[in-house]
Amino acid sequence: MLRNDQLDQWDRENFFHPSTHLAQHARGEAHSRIIETGSGVHIEDRDGNRLLDAFAGLYCVNVGYGRQEIAEAIAEQARKLAYYHAYVGHGTEASITLSKMILDRAPDNMSKVYFGLGGSDANETNIKLVWYYNNILGRPEKKKIISRWRGYHGSGLMTGSLTGLELFHKKFDLPFDNVLHTEAPYYFRRPDLAMSEADFVSHCVAELEAMIEREGADTIAAFIGEPAMGTGGLVPPPKGYWQAIQPVLKKHDILLIADEVVTGFGRLGSMFGSEHYGIEADIITIAKGLTSAYAPLSGSIVSNKVWDVLMKGTDETGPIGHGWTYSAHPIGAAAAIANLKLVDELNLVENAGVVGSHFTSAMRDALGDHPNVGEIRGEGLLMAVEFVEDRETRRFFDPSKKIGPTIAGELLKNGVIARAMPQGDIIGFAPPLCLTGDEAQQIVDAMTKSVESVLGR
Amino acid sequence: MLRNDQLDQWDRENFFHPSTHLAQHARGEAHSRIIETGSGVHIEDRDGNRLLDAFAGLYCVNVGYGRQEIAEAIAEQARKLAYYHAYVGHGTEASITLSKMILDRAPDNMSKVYFGLGGSDANETNIKLVWYYNNILGRPEKKKIISRWRGYHGSGLMTGSLTGLELFHKKFDLPFDNVLHTEAPYYFRRPDLAMSEADFVSHCVAELEAMIEREGADTIAAFIGEPAMGTGGLVPPPKGYWQAIQPVLKKHDILLIADEVVTGFGRLGSMFGSEHYGIEADIITIAKGLTSAYAPLSGSIVSNKVWDVLMKGTDETGPIGHGWTYSAHPIGAAAAIANLKLVDELNLVENAGVVGSHFTSAMRDALGDHPNVGEIRGEGLLMAVEFVEDRETRRFFDPSKKIGPTIAGELLKNGVIARAMPQGDIIGFAPPLCLTGDEAQQIVDAMTKSVESVLGR
Repeated sequence: MLRNDQLDQWDRENFFHPSTHLAQHARGEAHSRIIETGSGVHIEDRDGNRLLDAFAGLYCVNVGYGRQEIAEAIAEQARKLAYYHAYVGHGTEASITLSKMILDRAPDNMSKVYFGLGGSDANETNIKLVWYYNNILGRPEKKKIISRWRGYHGSGLMTGSLTGLELFHKKFDLPFDNVLHTEAPYYFRRPDLAMSEADFVSHCVAELEAMIEREGADTIAAFIGEPAMGTGGLVPPPKGYWQAIQPVLKKHDILLIADEVVTGFGRLGSMFGSEHYGIEADIITIAKGLTSAYAPLSGSIVSNKVWDVLMKGTDETGPIGHGWTYSAHPIGAAAAIANLKLVDELNLVENAGVVGSHFTSAMRDALGDHPNVGEIRGEGLLMAVEFVEDRETRRFFDPSKKIGPTIAGELLKNGVIARAMPQGDIIGFAPPLCLTGDEAQQIVDAMTKSVESVLGR
Repeated sequence: MLRNDQLDQWDRENFFHPSTHLAQHARGEAHSRIIETGSGVHIEDRDGNRLLDAFAGLYCVNVGYGRQEIAEAIAEQARKLAYYHAYVGHGTEASITLSKMILDRAPDNMSKVYFGLGGSDANETNIKLVWYYNNILGRPEKKKIISRWRGYHGSGLMTGSLTGLELFHKKFDLPFDNVLHTEAPYYFRRPDLAMSEADFVSHCVAELEAMIEREGADTIAAFIGEPAMGTGGLVPPPKGYWQAIQPVLKKHDILLIADEVVTGFGRLGSMFGSEHYGIEADIITIAKGLTSAYAPLSGSIVSNKVWDVLMKGTDETGPIGHGWTYSAHPIGAAAAIANLKLVDELNLVENAGVVGSHFTSAMRDALGDHPNVGEIRGEGLLMAVEFVEDRETRRFFDPSKKIGPTIAGELLKNGVIARAMPQGDIIGFAPPLCLTGDEAQQIVDAMTKSVESVLGR
């Protein structure tokens, strides 16, 4: 085993980390952590620290760490056939079996799955498909995409444009012109505190309708949204939001892309967020929970309605000019099959609902009346605590005070990894779906201690 | 094991294959093939066919199929830690070790490696970095990218725009406006048959200079090119091309991105194409040969010059807003380490040069004087045979005759997989780098038989 100090030096000299302060890392000013192993909800680093990962990596290790069943499936596939491509109708037993398993679990109107690697490239595929769809239908002007402020859909050029967070735009000349952002379905941050939840839903609908009116429905191809928002703040939608939004889209023949990278395969206590909220999507994006991150794999599930047009397109113009070398990679497919089996066997979808509900209640019991806690919100095992300087007026802290990151730092000292979300003082929790009630209570206790240490009681 | 007919049905019902005629596949009109296992340069399908894969998957399985050393490295990593993210300075022994191994092999002016999943997302990262770079340097207008016709850089929206092939543009509204295409360095297809190779290089330079003059150097951020072109036809550059192009870029402060997805790690008989042709790049794209496709992994290697500006950027604006969940995935890193060790131990870089040279000579001996063979070109184990209706006048066949695909189909019947490249009647060969002289001769014999069967002697 290599000495840590040797690895530290190689790390600083050679490794360009994502979402990192590059200069501080290279100069050795920022703490780095080398992860060694993991089991269940815990990870261990090379310095011997054992941490409860209440964010499941990047809300992706849904079955928990160290599942030897998945490791063995990966190993077996690697020994037999690590790779062959899926172009021009090629497949493997693993990739074909997985395509069936996904469609068996997806909503009834879904038809086929295109495999990618991560959520960003899957959403990139989706935009390509939506444009192709409207070109085949003879509607070359119908191409703009509506996303929501605070939505997260990736960090590429198009997918970072879809994302409605400043961090992913600034200095990258994003968003692109053909991406529009409408109101975030974020009731806690409603423009007027006097609005009821129903009023706020009407406001979101009115904003969307005004945007469509302004731009012209014949210029708008699709609307993309996470069933419950992720990186923008872990925000379940206000009651009735999707029921109110969908008729507007249908009326204007605007496709609905449900980005289920975070919510797919159990996070909310249902197999899909679409099912959870009664969303009938035209395309569903999947990634993280598909493999629990044991190997990279994402997917774009297209509906019968979209698939029929894609078939027409290839009948008219020949094979579709879209492919990644690693589409349907056998290692990813083998990992996904073993992962989805485990999700079933361990009853993790139900567990996410039951333990999630307990977790949110316990957090509300512990911190619900803290003067700086503005909201505790959650659905299944997706939960957030949002901080304010003043509850009554919902006055936020000055961002320069870094309240969120400071609390996350304290939590880490108390042995728990949570995530300070990027826009606002929001601590996010999205633990593995195998979380137990006891572990949920440990997180609540650590959070209480951390909040009180930073903000007092 | 599942019966083939059951898999065939699931395949048609659920699986959206890349680069496929979707309608024919779904209707069961196109042949599909389920790959079961592989060893060395051979793969086996579930119908019991054993084929010599002279295209190494999609020119990626450089070490050959069935390498148990890599399978075991993947298995070990999966058992210990299948995943943790690399955000905010996190790493694993595998990802850090690999970053050092890559920089040890890369040209001297290179500094750090950012890990992605496939070549497309790595080039997406590169464009983001180039724009960020010029924003930090206070040059917000310097953003256009020059690529070459017939270049291949991916099939996303931006990366498909960089790609200079019609198949990847049509019906997808590509290329984007800020991507420009200049002359392909494709001597065989020079505009005037009378041009010498040196004349043609001067012509390429003049075209590039005229484009820069027309657009304004202060609007152009980068030039991207494959050291030797891949999907556009497997075309080594004309002699002196890179020596003539680079001073033009330097003069106008235009960054050079060398897309080494195909050429990196040995394909041309050198560790990198940059080394092979004396290219001093600012950013190098790597993928395929990095892991020999045993697991998805790509990278953007940035030079000291670029890295210094990225450091300045994060000092001025905080952590960089770019990250993929699966950046530096431990399974990919473990596969890459084992793969690069094998490349060294088996001396595959040298083998690619030696056997490649023999392979090209043997193909020229067999088919060089065939009346429909316009050119046989190669470098290392990247080789192409291009067909014409008339040698003297370089008159091409009518594309509707599908000469290329027909020859590739015959080759398959003769037990050899090669690739009919998308624009022109070009049969491409890029076998695993462990190819032996005997296997090279087998390919030549099968090719000769196939060509004669389609075009006569």
